[in-house]
Amino acid sequence: MEYRIEKDTMGEVKVPADKLWGAQTERSRNNFKIGPAASMPLEIVYGFAYLKKAAAYTNCELGALSKEKRDLIGAVCDEILEGKHDDQFPLVIWQTGSGTQSNMNVNEVIANRAHQLAGKTIGEGDKTLAPNDDVNKSQSSNDTFPTGMHIAAYKKIVEVTIPGVKQLRDTLDQKATQYKDVVKIGRTHFMDATPLTIGQELSGYVSQLDHGIKALENTLPHMAELALGGTAVGTGLNTPDGYADRVAAYIAEFTKLPFVSAFNKFEALAAHDAFVETHGALKQLAVALNKIGNDIRMLASGPRSGIGELIIPANEPGSSIMPGKVNPTQCEALTMVCAQVIGNDVAVNVGGMQGHFELNVFKPVMAANVLQSAQLLGDACVSFDEHCAQGIEPNTKRIQELLNNSLMLVTALNTKIGYYKAAEIANTAHQNGTTLKEEAINLGYVTAEEFEEWVRPEDMVGSLKQ
Amino acid sequence: MEYRIEKDTMGEVKVPADKLWGAQTERSRNNFKIGPAASMPLEIVYGFAYLKKAAAYTNCELGALSKEKRDLIGAVCDEILEGKHDDQFPLVIWQTGSGTQSNMNVNEVIANRAHQLAGKTIGEGDKTLAPNDDVNKSQSSNDTFPTGMHIAAYKKIVEVTIPGVKQLRDTLDQKATQYKDVVKIGRTHFMDATPLTIGQELSGYVSQLDHGIKALENTLPHMAELALGGTAVGTGLNTPDGYADRVAAYIAEFTKLPFVSAFNKFEALAAHDAFVETHGALKQLAVALNKIGNDIRMLASGPRSGIGELIIPANEPGSSIMPGKVNPTQCEALTMVCAQVIGNDVAVNVGGMQGHFELNVFKPVMAANVLQSAQLLGDACVSFDEHCAQGIEPNTKRIQELLNNSLMLVTALNTKIGYYKAAEIANTAHQNGTTLKEEAINLGYVTAEEFEEWVRPEDMVGSLKQ
Amino acid sequence: MEYRIEKDTMGEVKVPADKLWGAQTERSRNNFKIGPAASMPLEIVYGFAYLKKAAAYTNCELGALSKEKRDLIGAVCDEILEGKHDDQFPLVIWQTGSGTQSNMNVNEVIANRAHQLAGKTIGEGDKTLAPNDDVNKSQSSNDTFPTGMHIAAYKKIVEVTIPGVKQLRDTLDQKATQYKDVVKIGRTHFMDATPLTIGQELSGYVSQLDHGIKALENTLPHMAELALGGTAVGTGLNTPDGYADRVAAYIAEFTKLPFVSAFNKFEALAAHDAFVETHGALKQLAVALNKIGNDIRMLASGPRSGIGELIIPANEPGSSIMPGKVNPTQCEALTMVCAQVIGNDVAVNVGGMQGHFELNVFKPVMAANVLQSAQLLGDACVSFDEHCAQGIEPNTKRIQELLNNSLMLVTALNTKIGYYKAAEIANTAHQNGTTLKEEAINLGYVTAEEFEEWVRPEDMVGSLKQ
Amino acid sequence: MEYRIEKDTMGEVKVPADKLWGAQTERSRNNFKIGPAASMPLEIVYGFAYLKKAAAYTNCELGALSKEKRDLIGAVCDEILEGKHDDQFPLVIWQTGSGTQSNMNVNEVIANRAHQLAGKTIGEGDKTLAPNDDVNKSQSSNDTFPTGMHIAAYKKIVEVTIPGVKQLRDTLDQKATQYKDVVKIGRTHFMDATPLTIGQELSGYVSQLDHGIKALENTLPHMAELALGGTAVGTGLNTPDGYADRVAAYIAEFTKLPFVSAFNKFEALAAHDAFVETHGALKQLAVALNKIGNDIRMLASGPRSGIGELIIPANEPGSSIMPGKVNPTQCEALTMVCAQVIGNDVAVNVGGMQGHFELNVFKPVMAANVLQSAQLLGDACVSFDEHCAQGIEPNTKRIQELLNNSLMLVTALNTKIGYYKAAEIANTAHQNGTTLKEEAINLGYVTAEEFEEWVRPEDMVGSLKQ
Repeated sequence: MEYRIEKDTMGEVKVPADKLWGAQTERSRNNFKIGPAASMPLEIVYGFAYLKKAAAYTNCELGALSKEKRDLIGAVCDEILEGKHDDQFPLVIWQTGSGTQSNMNVNEVIANRAHQLAGKTIGEGDKTLAPNDDVNKSQSSNDTFPTGMHIAAYKKIVEVTIPGVKQLRDTLDQKATQYKDVVKIGRTHFMDATPLTIGQELSGYVSQLDHGIKALENTLPHMAELALGGTAVGTGLNTPDGYADRVAAYIAEFTKLPFVSAFNKFEALAAHDAFVETHGALKQLAVALNKIGNDIRMLASGPRSGIGELIIPANEPGSSIMPGKVNPTQCEALTMVCAQVIGNDVAVNVGGMQGHFELNVFKPVMAANVLQSAQLLGDACVSFDEHCAQGIEPNTKRIQELLNNSLMLVTALNTKIGYYKAAEIANTAHQNGTTLKEEAINLGYVTAEEFEEWVRPEDMVGSLKQ
Repeated sequence: MEYRIEKDTMGEVKVPADKLWGAQTERSRNNFKIGPAASMPLEIVYGFAYLKKAAAYTNCELGALSKEKRDLIGAVCDEILEGKHDDQFPLVIWQTGSGTQSNMNVNEVIANRAHQLAGKTIGEGDKTLAPNDDVNKSQSSNDTFPTGMHIAAYKKIVEVTIPGVKQLRDTLDQKATQYKDVVKIGRTHFMDATPLTIGQELSGYVSQLDHGIKALENTLPHMAELALGGTAVGTGLNTPDGYADRVAAYIAEFTKLPFVSAFNKFEALAAHDAFVETHGALKQLAVALNKIGNDIRMLASGPRSGIGELIIPANEPGSSIMPGKVNPTQCEALTMVCAQVIGNDVAVNVGGMQGHFELNVFKPVMAANVLQSAQLLGDACVSFDEHCAQGIEPNTKRIQELLNNSLMLVTALNTKIGYYKAAEIANTAHQNGTTLKEEAINLGYVTAEEFEEWVRPEDMVGSLKQ
Repeated sequence: MEYRIEKDTMGEVKVPADKLWGAQTERSRNNFKIGPAASMPLEIVYGFAYLKKAAAYTNCELGALSKEKRDLIGAVCDEILEGKHDDQFPLVIWQTGSGTQSNMNVNEVIANRAHQLAGKTIGEGDKTLAPNDDVNKSQSSNDTFPTGMHIAAYKKIVEVTIPGVKQLRDTLDQKATQYKDVVKIGRTHFMDATPLTIGQELSGYVSQLDHGIKALENTLPHMAELALGGTAVGTGLNTPDGYADRVAAYIAEFTKLPFVSAFNKFEALAAHDAFVETHGALKQLAVALNKIGNDIRMLASGPRSGIGELIIPANEPGSSIMPGKVNPTQCEALTMVCAQVIGNDVAVNVGGMQGHFELNVFKPVMAANVLQSAQLLGDACVSFDEHCAQGIEPNTKRIQELLNNSLMLVTALNTKIGYYKAAEIANTAHQNGTTLKEEAINLGYVTAEEFEEWVRPEDMVGSLKQ
Repeated sequence: MEYRIEKDTMGEVKVPADKLWGAQTERSRNNFKIGPAASMPLEIVYGFAYLKKAAAYTNCELGALSKEKRDLIGAVCDEILEGKHDDQFPLVIWQTGSGTQSNMNVNEVIANRAHQLAGKTIGEGDKTLAPNDDVNKSQSSNDTFPTGMHIAAYKKIVEVTIPGVKQLRDTLDQKATQYKDVVKIGRTHFMDATPLTIGQELSGYVSQLDHGIKALENTLPHMAELALGGTAVGTGLNTPDGYADRVAAYIAEFTKLPFVSAFNKFEALAAHDAFVETHGALKQLAVALNKIGNDIRMLASGPRSGIGELIIPANEPGSSIMPGKVNPTQCEALTMVCAQVIGNDVAVNVGGMQGHFELNVFKPVMAANVLQSAQLLGDACVSFDEHCAQGIEPNTKRIQELLNNSLMLVTALNTKIGYYKAAEIANTAHQNGTTLKEEAINLGYVTAEEFEEWVRPEDMVGSLKQ
């Protein structure tokens, strides 16, 4: 491989000749061989591109950078956002906990690419832009990395997670309406209970997702607060007057998202409770989705030795050895995602609780977990929606059979003949393997006509119909 | 011990003669000998007292219960809320997952105590009130237990957690103002960094707690939704028309808290995402408090071989062997509480994710964990506030010494002589064990006058002063 | 209330006159009002009683303590171990993270009680024993508290947890043998699969518990290592020669458990990986028990709209509103315990990871969680065993019905007619709601005789019969 | 793109013409667009390669497969293990929870590649090997996937994790020996305590890692148990006699690792407690490494306003804004890895606890987390070792300064003049900012000569010297 020489304050480093990065990126590549290469999420790099461009515009506006430099920086940032340089960010999550080296990776790529855009050859001649003095002007890793991760997470939440969850929520809501009159046996403690409709059952899932989305949206104002302008320890040292608000406004403009400058920059560097908060809502969604996915696979269990009340789409051959078997694979993918998200939540907590003094140095691990959870939940909801939820149908024959057979309809008699006699009827039918009606009449507690009139499943689902 | 005979649908049970509980409570005592007795939180019993009274009033108002019975039920509930029967609730968390037996415990105690209030002897004569048909009228364990746990948790949050956290927050805020001009060395990566004021440092903690309180308050509307009226599976079977809203209004009136009937009763029984949501905010506070408690003990470390910038109160002899040692014990208690809360969060998640069909049967464990975390956080904040935070003082001599000695003030020269020369000065002073000023002059980069003018810690903390 | 005056290095404190504790205990009571009083587990106090007695014997043997003092200390320790002073330990978990105050609580109670045993009145005359110089001789909180918690945890594991789990394991194993020939439908992905026997199914649970017990036993050697002799920082300062090994031998003798002196005292004070290790095994058992408890309730679900293959004991009326319903309440208590243990594991991790320098100051919270998990798991297994597992019976009629009805028996034809034709038979029967036999013959792939001979569930369970 | 047609039991699917996979892989690609493509760890694919080859050899040996087919299968498996087909496994973790589709991916790739090796063109002519009937012979996804994941995890633990941890352990042990006589101040509660040597301090870390490695090794026998031979539900249906033991022996031979056939195949399919167990040990190591990494960065803190007792290597410029600053970046990477591992542990638990009936369908997520944690821990230890631990040096000047200045040396006087007088000396020196010696003499408790003789740090570290 061919190399060129790049320098930083520690001296010279050999860098692959065809790469845009510089000395500090190369040092980091060599010093942190932990897990697969390039694990630092690209979304954070894109977040950096927004903020570097915004910083350049702000610096220029405030007289600290020339228009030429501003435009060069902006042009490279736009290229990065178009995905043209995705292979120029080889660093891993497991680096400096402030993300310093990813900040420098971006600075170096911008500087070297700007050199090319200026018609020169990397490594030759004076640098058109200095990575530190120009690209990183009025910035520190300590405020840029949290800014980049806030931008990345916010975008992911509103572009992937919420739309994905909503898509599933809407399908479930539509199914709830469609099957609002299908009466079925209820189940509590895994045991037969009084009836409800499929619509009611599904409405509970919709309500969970509605609450979950609301909880997630509640966290966005904290996530919208950007650290940029705090520089090294939150005081804003070496920034021009008015910089923090202005740069946040540019980021808001470039991303079309309601970012603001963090009210308190000391928190914004030293703690990432915003990530803890947002991931808390993500894991609430995971808890909800695990319940929903689990219910659906149990309701679809069978075909003959399970519950079998729901029919779900057959997307693939279910077994490599058992012919004719179709498995609830989307439920499985969804609930595996939930397991990951619930675990990731602890990783985020553990990172969040260990901020020290003026800086939390678990930034990359916290960001990577929030981004992964947000992506997986959104994707899994869409996958589950398209390949399972949309195709859910009630197995009405089976539903009717279980309903008619149920002993729990006896509850309807509580208010007519009292709890103890009702229990006697149910117990007798249970022991004899007979129906409630037979035993109710045998025991002389009701007539056939009374039974028919009083024990009507469709009358037992009513007062709180959604 | 003397016993009396109590009955339920399964037959007779011997109950200690001096106890108000009945057959089902006694069965549960015998069937669930898991951990210490009476671990079911009393706060949930009190929540039941509110709801049983509210149900009696609603049933009476809707024509389903006599005034006499209503008043008897109400009178016993008031006694329970006064703490007169705390020893009548012997059951454990680790019982039926719906809390059925604690519901019956309350029903039985109310019925037997009402019998006494009616001038009779327990176990003699017809029961004045039937535990199921009167006290539990229009209710099921499935909607009462979640109602009781929502009432208990809501009260705990607003009466203990939020006031406790706010008390600490206010002290920190007052200290931040008091010490807003005390300039000190900043620290990032545990390494010396540019200066900030104590006020700025503390303001970050205040901001964390403000965000945490806000996050916790965001969860209260979900917690305010009550399941009551859903009965067995959420359909409201066996409740009179208008019951659900009316009973919630009574609970709101009795508790003076903004409870409402849950919009969706199917969710309210089958899922406890409200508890997941609220505990998510509690653990966010734990994450924040762990950071704060940890910082304070590190800043107070010493007295001679640590950082020593803060002086914290000496509340007790610090060591049984090392004379003269005073330890940051309040920080330790606080951070141990944080560890517990972060663990409890997972217990709540694990319970929440396993709701099945129409009922989540991890109610007691979810409730117990939320209540414990809410209590511990509130208490720990008050303890930390009164025995540590209020007494925090800066060790100004030490602060000044460290500040003057710091190499990081060199950052102020970046904009004057450039990053590389500044680094050279710092590195030279570091190697020679000298001061920045000496080396800056030796190297010929600045004059003594320039140094005095440019490198002023108090000018380095300014642009984002809180 | 009446008080007496007690003193420590910080001055005088008023202590309730009837209590044996002294100044430092009282300070702690006042300084740490966090959660319920006396939450520090008594098991740790008992652990202290063993070690204080052992220290007295060792000090005496090595010439550092008189026989009189040794015997007085030993006598009080014996009283403590008989449970005579349980109400003299009012402190909470949430105190100094080294447990210093609980160490002093024990020292003070021993000193004051010894004063009584010596025929004197507490608070009057010269102290018969000095809490620090005599009772705490050759000790520090830093080595006594971890020693006390190791003793407490080891005893709990071998006296409660392992016997409890083994009791359940043995019942399941006995049931596996008893029902080794009951062939039933298997289920994978919640979907019908090829058959197995109940014995085989249960044998999987037994194997899980066997592996879990083995994993737990693997952790005991680490737990058997005692910190005592390390004193303040692990160097053993102020201990007589030979003290550490001798005192461990006494503890082993007094407890009849294989305790040894920790090979490395610096680890023994600064880290509690032994607790992390042991709790890791406890949570493995929780994971296993959750699977088992969940399976059993699903297999017992019904009575008519579930799986219904197992019959479990009816221990209590199942519902306050639904007559005749019997719930898997022991499964619920068990799985709630599992949720708690899985959460506690994180609390232990969070405490364990934050040891700093020569001391981990999350000792009480780590100890309390290990003790709670160990107790709950042991108790829950016994409860589940006695009130559920022992009474489990197969519902053979239902099992037969589901088995005969199953489409998955078609797998037996794979090796006869190939995977694709077998699938066609199953699919056709599935669509037509018919039996495999009918369709196998209709499609002309097998004769009735062949079907009878080839598709025999009892032949499909054999090659790995346990 | 060009396509060819592949078929399975559900019909035809278009597959990219240049790919070796078939219909079921392609369906999975389309049905599970969750997170980045090809997230299923390649290590599991390699595990499959070992087992497919072993199954072919066993089937052949037992008369169920021809030698030609065996050799073709073996040849492709060897190619896979050489990494020649890494791009042929495009599936994600978030698929069927049994990993069925990855099993089929391997089956399809082997069949198609064997077709090529047999000199034919994929998609043309009769298949040389049938993916189900030949490659998957005597297997099910349900036993192959867990076998593949056990092989992958075992190899990763013994090839990456343990060697990595041991490498770091050996360096720390060597440093402990090297600096066994460097006496320094100890710290408990972050406060100055009695002295110890650097060797002693480091020996605690070594002991933690030794215990951690032992704990991890304890889990390997469970991990060595392979499910293969259980087929669909654990009964071994459709396997030839003797298959299970034979195939395990082949796997042991091919991998040179001590794999055995699982004693109980029902557990081996339905539960993955082996993964819970192994990950439990991994997180114990994470807890230990977090303590170690954290201590080292605190001991290296400064250069002037921290503790500064250790000097760690400067691997990169520490700050993009603060010249001269060198950060403990390896500690940060290491502790971020620890945070991830502690979170992953919960994901593994959540997956493990939800096995249902005869199959746990959280296999891929459990496997992926164990593999990630095992890789990250091993890599991070090597990185930390090479770029930090090996270069650690004591800052002897600073260590001496802090030691001489310390008040805690007073403890040495306890046994000479008693605890209370020693405390008085320390307190007076603390208040006056003087030395212990001055005040000891001033107070008249010791002479200068006595002080010199009695208060010798090097005599205070002795009795338990490692």
